[in-house]
Amino acid sequence: MKILVVGATGTIGKAIVSKLEQEQHTIITASRKESDVTVDMTSVTSIQAMYEQVGKIDALVVAAGSAYFGPLTTMTPENNEQSIEGKLKGQMNLVLLGLEHLNDGGSFTLVTGIMMDDPIKEGASAAMVNGGIRAFVKSAAIEMPRSIRINSVSPNVLQESWDKYSDFFVGFNPVPVEKVAQAFVKSVLGGQTGQNYEVY
Amino acid sequence: MKILVVGATGTIGKAIVSKLEQEQHTIITASRKESDVTVDMTSVTSIQAMYEQVGKIDALVVAAGSAYFGPLTTMTPENNEQSIEGKLKGQMNLVLLGLEHLNDGGSFTLVTGIMMDDPIKEGASAAMVNGGIRAFVKSAAIEMPRSIRINSVSPNVLQESWDKYSDFFVGFNPVPVEKVAQAFVKSVLGGQTGQNYEVY
Repeated sequence: MKILVVGATGTIGKAIVSKLEQEQHTIITASRKESDVTVDMTSVTSIQAMYEQVGKIDALVVAAGSAYFGPLTTMTPENNEQSIEGKLKGQMNLVLLGLEHLNDGGSFTLVTGIMMDDPIKEGASAAMVNGGIRAFVKSAAIEMPRSIRINSVSPNVLQESWDKYSDFFVGFNPVPVEKVAQAFVKSVLGGQTGQNYEVY
Repeated sequence: MKILVVGATGTIGKAIVSKLEQEQHTIITASRKESDVTVDMTSVTSIQAMYEQVGKIDALVVAAGSAYFGPLTTMTPENNEQSIEGKLKGQMNLVLLGLEHLNDGGSFTLVTGIMMDDPIKEGASAAMVNGGIRAFVKSAAIEMPRSIRINSVSPNVLQESWDKYSDFFVGFNPVPVEKVAQAFVKSVLGGQTGQNYEVY
């Protein structure tokens, strides 16, 4: 299977690539830099160029997309725009523009996040993106052509990032990135569609 | 209570105004035209001008915001942008820019919709908006200052619109607009926060 991983250089992306490589699949890594292919997911042109360069694929996996974090009381429309341009529109455009590049029976796997279900302070804009992607996935699944599937994975905060983020995720139980990567594997190699896999 | 209703001229908006007027509240209607105040919720400037004109309020109610409907396989990033600019950013900006204009203990009530939970064909972009608003509301609720509350109402398709939309909502059981308006009343006059009231 030929699998394109956007966000391949991040903590989750690396774990996904490692797992899928063990299964003897052909992985093409994509990110802003230091990957097989360069992509800026906030740019429609850049996404289109990536797909042209890569050719037909069996699966697109996204483990990228930045969102704004900051107090609600000082959040501006411009702050919120960062989340929309990055993690929300970026992921949706990877699907809308990627449909024709997916082989029959292929799959899309997007990323959401626990704060839509279990809110944290300063996380309202990011929660919006996660909830938007989950609903898009559930709805898009019923219209996918040629047996193409679509799912999302919703990670808890990672054990690997706990030192950095524990102050934001007070009282959370961080999960190992390996467990999150396993949910991506289920989406790519399994048969389900329209799901949001909660790794909480 | 002084209540600003954005989208006051629509089917749901009219029903909300009618119910709240019975309760002896002061209602200020807002919409693109034919209301007490004119507002284009896709414009930050227009939203700011509306709040300046209206002064301090106790509640903001939104029953407006357009979203794109069309087949997933032909949906473009530009099509999807209509939903983002309208119902998603429009509602979020009404909250972000409205916070300082709300009296202590006031409330925001936004609108989502059933297709995020029970998807329909051609509804993926609208579902995304609804899911995004629900998650934003749940998360924003924990950061609201001065005992301000925030909820959303998720209507099923309306009996009053059934002639127009029955082909899209195959097998759905439409609900009377009066029942949807009642959920808005619960949000404005009740004590809950962070809720999405499903009127299914």
